[in-house]
Amino acid sequence: MIVCLCGGVGAARMLAGIQRVVDPTQITAVVNTADDEIFYGLHVAPDLDTITYTLGGAVHPDQGWGRQGETFAVLDELTELGEDTWFALGDKDIALHLIRNDALARGQTLTEATAQIARRFDIDVRLLPMTDDRVRTVLDVEVDGHITTMAMQTWFVRHRHQPRVHRVRFDGADVATPAPHVLESIERADRIVVCPSNPYVSIDPILSLPAIEQALRRRRDDVVAVSPLVGAAAVKGPAADMMMALDGEVSNRVVGARYTPWCSRLVIDIRDAHDAPAVEKLGMRCDVTETLMSSPRAAAELAAVVLETGG
Amino acid sequence: MIVCLCGGVGAARMLAGIQRVVDPTQITAVVNTADDEIFYGLHVAPDLDTITYTLGGAVHPDQGWGRQGETFAVLDELTELGEDTWFALGDKDIALHLIRNDALARGQTLTEATAQIARRFDIDVRLLPMTDDRVRTVLDVEVDGHITTMAMQTWFVRHRHQPRVHRVRFDGADVATPAPHVLESIERADRIVVCPSNPYVSIDPILSLPAIEQALRRRRDDVVAVSPLVGAAAVKGPAADMMMALDGEVSNRVVGARYTPWCSRLVIDIRDAHDAPAVEKLGMRCDVTETLMSSPRAAAELAAVVLETGG
Repeated sequence: MIVCLCGGVGAARMLAGIQRVVDPTQITAVVNTADDEIFYGLHVAPDLDTITYTLGGAVHPDQGWGRQGETFAVLDELTELGEDTWFALGDKDIALHLIRNDALARGQTLTEATAQIARRFDIDVRLLPMTDDRVRTVLDVEVDGHITTMAMQTWFVRHRHQPRVHRVRFDGADVATPAPHVLESIERADRIVVCPSNPYVSIDPILSLPAIEQALRRRRDDVVAVSPLVGAAAVKGPAADMMMALDGEVSNRVVGARYTPWCSRLVIDIRDAHDAPAVEKLGMRCDVTETLMSSPRAAAELAAVVLETGG
Repeated sequence: MIVCLCGGVGAARMLAGIQRVVDPTQITAVVNTADDEIFYGLHVAPDLDTITYTLGGAVHPDQGWGRQGETFAVLDELTELGEDTWFALGDKDIALHLIRNDALARGQTLTEATAQIARRFDIDVRLLPMTDDRVRTVLDVEVDGHITTMAMQTWFVRHRHQPRVHRVRFDGADVATPAPHVLESIERADRIVVCPSNPYVSIDPILSLPAIEQALRRRRDDVVAVSPLVGAAAVKGPAADMMMALDGEVSNRVVGARYTPWCSRLVIDIRDAHDAPAVEKLGMRCDVTETLMSSPRAAAELAAVVLETGG
């Protein structure tokens, strides 16, 4: 059994690769939900949705998130009615949010709603939200020289992750409980894979649940992480900018230093091979390989290296 | 000041006529909400929406309900995802439901949400739900020789109002309070107009709130109703079938008998002029005129007769 800790696009592609080399029913994805936001009363879960669309073969192939063939009739009408529609909810997206909303309104947990949605997309990987409780990524960011606080989607989408981040916190994490099956999956897994997701706002929130961090520390020998850096830059999104702002440099030494308390092995990109000695100094094994998942086949090859399945 | 008791399409057309002969800001519409249903956790209010779309100039002109230029991208995706989509939620419709959902999720009442939506459609008539509480039209209907209970939309839309109705009740009406401004509007109105709506499932639910019925009884002299019958048939919908099933005949005598405790005058269609003596026998004044609102102009002419504004 394989457990994967997941953010959005990078994790979705990694999972798609892993399910090419491992029986999908033997994979459990524990997904960040601290990005989730309520729009118009609907629970929008960007990371769960990106993974659902990717594994369901429905994702927009270039974007890596959202739906292929998406339309925006509802959003156009919201705009027409005077709404400030900075979050681009597509029509197909809204259909999924409505199904989730219906399940939650009927008293289902997010875990149950997620499983129900995954079945509709014929997904065999088990998708688990990290928690059924409300944990929220909140950022202290700099705007016009002043520090202000923003919710994740406000910063990421509305402000296009431009304001410099000074601090990230996870409201509610101290009192949140991991979702059912999360801890036991981590305990029983043959291997735990940390997907190439943003360490600060995708992986950290999962670790912000104390019980999950403790469980990972106990399994440190079997935890392997894939660095999100390729050529000392993020493939996508603000990970590199955040790293520079919060840790003063962009390198796998930073990734390793963050992960080493609960992770024994870091897989880094061939373009960053020079980082390997610094990572090893942190007490981690460091493997160097091609990590850019430019195709499902490339993702599967990366998965084989990560899982050491040979081939 | 004019107060109108309203169902859906017939009431919307009547209101559009009345606002051609009376300053719209002097009109208050008290709208049936016992038809309201929760779809995917969204509060759908068919009668409020039909009136909003009509007065907002956005209604589908042939249907008399729903939006002009409506599309169904979300519904198509819901169907694709395996949902039984018997209730045709359009994309523009969903945009409105999302705005309402957002308002309700933020703790606004239905009255507040309705006013906010009306402003976005530039509506000057004051739209009031009959109550902010949950009142639900439930029907005992006959299916394959058995009596079964159905919610209003299930019977009306899903079963196309085919099953014969044995009984109509309004769950929650005994403990519901009229929405703010409803009672005082009725008390202060110069005239109260009962729109040509279904007596059983549009007008009756409004009267099912005891405080509203009492207020109307006190204003009986100033209450005028427009019959929904044209040529002993309903212009639209199941009113005539229900009348036959529940009262044994389709005539304005039945409408009059239901309304006379709190209504002093009934306006009937010229095609049903022969009903006038029977209506007058009930102690009501009966006016005969063209009631078919085939155009906004025809609706305005009917409004002038109903309000006795001359012309």
